[in-house]
Amino acid sequence: MNEHTVKAFDEDIGELRGLIAQMGGLAEAAIDASMDALKRHDLEAAARIIDGDKQIDELETEVERLAVRLIALRAPMADDLREVVAALKIAGVVERIGDYAKNIAKRVAAIDGHSVIEPLSLLPAMANMATDMVRNVLDAFAARDPEAAVRVCEQDRAVDDFYNSIFRTLVTFMVENPKSISQAAHMLFIAKNLERVGDHATNVAEMVYYAATGDHMGDRDQGDTVPLAGS
Amino acid sequence: MNEHTVKAFDEDIGELRGLIAQMGGLAEAAIDASMDALKRHDLEAAARIIDGDKQIDELETEVERLAVRLIALRAPMADDLREVVAALKIAGVVERIGDYAKNIAKRVAAIDGHSVIEPLSLLPAMANMATDMVRNVLDAFAARDPEAAVRVCEQDRAVDDFYNSIFRTLVTFMVENPKSISQAAHMLFIAKNLERVGDHATNVAEMVYYAATGDHMGDRDQGDTVPLAGS
Repeated sequence: MNEHTVKAFDEDIGELRGLIAQMGGLAEAAIDASMDALKRHDLEAAARIIDGDKQIDELETEVERLAVRLIALRAPMADDLREVVAALKIAGVVERIGDYAKNIAKRVAAIDGHSVIEPLSLLPAMANMATDMVRNVLDAFAARDPEAAVRVCEQDRAVDDFYNSIFRTLVTFMVENPKSISQAAHMLFIAKNLERVGDHATNVAEMVYYAATGDHMGDRDQGDTVPLAGS
Repeated sequence: MNEHTVKAFDEDIGELRGLIAQMGGLAEAAIDASMDALKRHDLEAAARIIDGDKQIDELETEVERLAVRLIALRAPMADDLREVVAALKIAGVVERIGDYAKNIAKRVAAIDGHSVIEPLSLLPAMANMATDMVRNVLDAFAARDPEAAVRVCEQDRAVDDFYNSIFRTLVTFMVENPKSISQAAHMLFIAKNLERVGDHATNVAEMVYYAATGDHMGDRDQGDTVPLAGS
């Protein structure tokens, strides 16, 4: 590559990083806003979150277009190619995090805070832990910091523990409040969505680690957290 | 492109299609097997499904490697590039469908068929509808058939209706059987996983349509199905 090509590549990859940071900021804000709408049973705010998800989707399309153009025109090799592919995949994951915020917003109408006060108070704390992971992992991506990525993976254990505790709390709540079972079931899905946000942040952390080092972080346990039977 | 390049591209894209067909077959079989393990409370079969998911993940990595090589070396334009990007994204979605089978398998231990016979009988029928969509959409991809892709999207409505009906059945069951609430909650997640399989097949259908025609199928309602409050 000549100097001009290198500079053009750096500009493109900088643009990719900027788009992903923008997506991440929107996804994080959408999750915070969904918790707020839930607490206040604010249907208008929920509708805005659902509608706002389109913006994240559009940014993902822009990332794809740019990444494909970059691969096709600049034919990056090794490290650079690994970084473009990581950006493409990270954008896909952040888009899914945005979808979780949208899904939570869709449940606002189904949950009336007054009748399910107790378990409702646990969700925002869990949401904070999950969005914290998203923020940290995107910072790690921007800084190409593999150590920060490892720390994000460690945070995921706390989110999983929190999820298991909410699952048990909600099942107990259902047993004691059969009239609120439908609402509690919706809250169970919200807790699961937040747990998945943590999983996705972990996935991104692994991609950041791989893009920065060329090595895999090792076979960590991924995927759905299933509390033990009878819990 | 000269004749040699065209032929090499066709071979590569054929290999991509073959890998995706293989992934789809494995994902479909994993969902069927998870229903079977659930009905028979077969923990060994469940463990095999969980372990087998790695194979689908490895195939996705192979698709990525091949697609990136194809874009970088052959620099495909317009229609061809659209098809490679579609293949890349479709592989990602099929990998997620495999994850749902794994997640269902993880819940086998938490569900004892004897105490939840009634709602348990509904899940395999829903699973059949969802895997039918997966099979049809991968056939549509192999045949580059946009009309078949549209039909897959239409099938998704039936899966969503089924999900809403299972949600109501399970909530009623929980009210009447407070001791089985934890198990019923796991079944709710299984039903939700199957509903998401249908959504993902719909996403793939839209990619197949776009890859084949260059047009978007139109703004269909996507994402999480949330039954109405009080249902």
